Amino acid sequence: MKKVEILDTTLRDGAQSEGISFSLHDKLAVVETLDSLGIPLIEAGNPGSNPKDLAFFQEARQLRLVHARLAAFGATCRPGVAVTDDPQVRSLVQAGTPVLVIFGKTWDLHVTEVLKTTCDENLRMIRDTLAHARAHAERVVFDAEHFYDGFRANPDYALAALDAAAEAGADVLCLCDTNGGRFPEEIAEATRVVHKRLGSRVAIGVHPHNDSGLAVANALTAVRAGAIHVQGTLIGFGERCGNVNLATTIANLQLKGGYTCLPADKLAGLTAAARRVAEIANTGLSDDQPYVGAKAFTHKAGMHMDGVRKCSESFEHVPPESVGNARRFLMSEIAGRSAVLARIQRVAPAVQKTDKVVDEVVLRLKELEQQGYQFEGADGSFELLVRKALGLHQPHFALEHYQIIGERPAKNEQEGASAIIKIRVEGRTEMTAAAGDGPVNALDRGLRKALERFYPSLAEVRLTDYKVRVLDGNRATEAKVRVLIESTDGHAVWTTVGVSTDIIEASWFALADSIEYKLSH
Amino acid sequence: MKKVEILDTTLRDGAQSEGISFSLHDKLAVVETLDSLGIPLIEAGNPGSNPKDLAFFQEARQLRLVHARLAAFGATCRPGVAVTDDPQVRSLVQAGTPVLVIFGKTWDLHVTEVLKTTCDENLRMIRDTLAHARAHAERVVFDAEHFYDGFRANPDYALAALDAAAEAGADVLCLCDTNGGRFPEEIAEATRVVHKRLGSRVAIGVHPHNDSGLAVANALTAVRAGAIHVQGTLIGFGERCGNVNLATTIANLQLKGGYTCLPADKLAGLTAAARRVAEIANTGLSDDQPYVGAKAFTHKAGMHMDGVRKCSESFEHVPPESVGNARRFLMSEIAGRSAVLARIQRVAPAVQKTDKVVDEVVLRLKELEQQGYQFEGADGSFELLVRKALGLHQPHFALEHYQIIGERPAKNEQEGASAIIKIRVEGRTEMTAAAGDGPVNALDRGLRKALERFYPSLAEVRLTDYKVRVLDGNRATEAKVRVLIESTDGHAVWTTVGVSTDIIEASWFALADSIEYKLSH
Repeated sequence: MKKVEILDTTLRDGAQSEGISFSLHDKLAVVETLDSLGIPLIEAGNPGSNPKDLAFFQEARQLRLVHARLAAFGATCRPGVAVTDDPQVRSLVQAGTPVLVIFGKTWDLHVTEVLKTTCDENLRMIRDTLAHARAHAERVVFDAEHFYDGFRANPDYALAALDAAAEAGADVLCLCDTNGGRFPEEIAEATRVVHKRLGSRVAIGVHPHNDSGLAVANALTAVRAGAIHVQGTLIGFGERCGNVNLATTIANLQLKGGYTCLPADKLAGLTAAARRVAEIANTGLSDDQPYVGAKAFTHKAGMHMDGVRKCSESFEHVPPESVGNARRFLMSEIAGRSAVLARIQRVAPAVQKTDKVVDEVVLRLKELEQQGYQFEGADGSFELLVRKALGLHQPHFALEHYQIIGERPAKNEQEGASAIIKIRVEGRTEMTAAAGDGPVNALDRGLRKALERFYPSLAEVRLTDYKVRVLDGNRATEAKVRVLIESTDGHAVWTTVGVSTDIIEASWFALADSIEYKLSH
Repeated sequence: MKKVEILDTTLRDGAQSEGISFSLHDKLAVVETLDSLGIPLIEAGNPGSNPKDLAFFQEARQLRLVHARLAAFGATCRPGVAVTDDPQVRSLVQAGTPVLVIFGKTWDLHVTEVLKTTCDENLRMIRDTLAHARAHAERVVFDAEHFYDGFRANPDYALAALDAAAEAGADVLCLCDTNGGRFPEEIAEATRVVHKRLGSRVAIGVHPHNDSGLAVANALTAVRAGAIHVQGTLIGFGERCGNVNLATTIANLQLKGGYTCLPADKLAGLTAAARRVAEIANTGLSDDQPYVGAKAFTHKAGMHMDGVRKCSESFEHVPPESVGNARRFLMSEIAGRSAVLARIQRVAPAVQKTDKVVDEVVLRLKELEQQGYQFEGADGSFELLVRKALGLHQPHFALEHYQIIGERPAKNEQEGASAIIKIRVEGRTEMTAAAGDGPVNALDRGLRKALERFYPSLAEVRLTDYKVRVLDGNRATEAKVRVLIESTDGHAVWTTVGVSTDIIEASWFALADSIEYKLSH
């Protein structure tokens, strides 16, 4: 299989995305994640424009990388300045990375209107900087900024800029769609022209952006037209609409395109690596990301579930495990009986499709969905519902009464509310009180306080997410609300749900389910 | 310019997305949003599989739509069942929409392995159902499910299924990449074959999914190969990784492809419509969506800001205003200022860019945004903020203290909470109490009760929407929440916002703003 070299720029172009900022510690963690995934080139900073990046590259020398080489990124020298006199170029070389990526202008509009110099001077800048880099690094990449826009506006000049970089010793000419505006047919044509002209002497690369929603298609098109190097970011971070998503691109190329990007045994690590990078960036991975998102192999329509059960390729373009992801079936009013059965069987494997309990659960599900419940994101509550229907559930406590009091202004700003809870547990009535930020927080604290004495394992439980959805918001403050709570004990993660016109009560239902779920495992 | 007909299926295929569920009220609001954007076809439900959808279609007959026609979606009749005996087909026709979309199998694997019938019987089902639909609707679309996978596996059979639909009277043959797994070159080839065979008799359409990150490219490719009908969802909702994003597709086709999808004056409404649909679905629009996302024209790197300032096309593929979006410079006071100025001038047209009040509002806005406020959807609160900064606002009441009490079980199920409110109004301290469904409802009722005596015009005010978004959900029950309230007095509609870790307090802020807004007009 033909090889395509991947360069990840999460730490450089990705960090130019609004809301993304990496600490030194974060950067090292990203490098380690990418290295263990088998990414061969990691562009990790722009030391000439960001002094903190220089510190990172010094620190990074300690890393023992298995698969990856680090690259530093910088511009050509400035107009009218000798390359050896340019402080930005000096910082770049100082980074001491085995690979250097130099970007230069190839669109004449940028040369004259943004850089405010002449087309000839720009060629001189490219030539001198590439030759200088050549002398200081094992491998030199020329990022031809705005190449595709430049090729469209003035192909002769855009190609002359590439010629200059190639003559000065670039190993890779990477063609950038910096503004993300070009269509695949334009990418194909320009890449073919470059490949024909220079492909026998240097490697051709591509660097697409997603402003037209076409970045992945543009990367694939360029590869078909001769590119053997792709620059992007693992989960699509990047200025504006992002760089090309490498997780998607790699999976497409390697599973369906007949190319190799990662060592074959590494592809199953793709989902975990994508989630790890999202976690380090503290953004969370969008659920609908191709291949690696939480919803990528999630089925909600009953007909789809039925199809996948009969033959997985009927509704899945690749096996989820090929990229380390997993199939999920959601419970919902559009899910059929057989989906419900499959979920019941996880709790009680002996149950058959014709058993009465299946009807009971389906009926109860419909009733609850009418009331506004939704179990597709609430595995914990769904499991309790099944256990109850099967007669397997023994409640660990019962509410006798709670009262919450909230006031503003509050005596203590952090404790605007308090809760008094009376519950029946192990044959006794237990009463506690607790204060909190708001009434839900007070109720949460009060319930745990009452129960922890009886069930010490609850001390491990933490709530990790709290979501509120107002149903029929047009009934305004009389509207029903649905509360979803995610909990963990450090090992398992479960989600529970509650619905009421009273947000406190809805939260109570979800809280009580969360605790019951933990205690029944 | 060549026309491409757009069918939006946010309410049908989009609703098959995890976490998306629309109430009847939400559905009507989505239809109105799409209609005013100029979308010609809206597929709004599957009445045969979901009884609630039938209720929606009955309600929808009251709508006065300007641009759009509604479509109901359903399957062909079942194997071995006459079309007139199939309850699913009966519900579909009962919906009474001018347009019917019938989906049928075209991949032989699905026919034999999922439907468990014969290839001939499947052709009979297509033929009979399409002919039946033909007799009951103005326009009939055949959704050729899994067409591209089917064409790859058994092209003769896939084409025979299309022939059957065309002969039975379909107006549109819509080719689906149901699993989202096919590459643009496969889409191009198959679409060309179909167009050559049937394009002179029926319109060819495309229905791509995004499982390979290629949905937009596949839509464009199919259009180039002869398709003149595109099915997708405005902001990409849909099973698994979503349907093709229509906002991106429409902007690509209309701004760069030389096609017309919407009336020319409607394209500038694209961003607002996308945000409105996200708001209705209570999901928020991802910032990095091409064209319409908040970051689509946001510049963070200094070099990019400099370039855009010199010449906007240097870093923007299209002008942001062409799709109703706006350019943002991060960390750039100048850009922030002029946007704020425009909003201030709506309240006080005489204010100039250099006036001190502009700085004050910018500063206050930044502080509040840090706290989690967001004024994009809260014009009422923003106007109050500006009035306060301009010294134009005279508060009509001041909170001295409120206390809310909630309990479960409650003496009266409908009144689980009560509120005691002490406010200062017209120089007097007024104290009232009220009961409600939950604490927010009780607070709402108590506040009106206290004020209506002084301001009888408040009797006209109704709250029409109430939304809660949890910020930092991972802080669980200690998380901040943002409450949005929409109000009307029968003439105007305004939205106000409140943020706090205490949901009651956040609701109070939004309620108090809503009342103040009404009283200051």
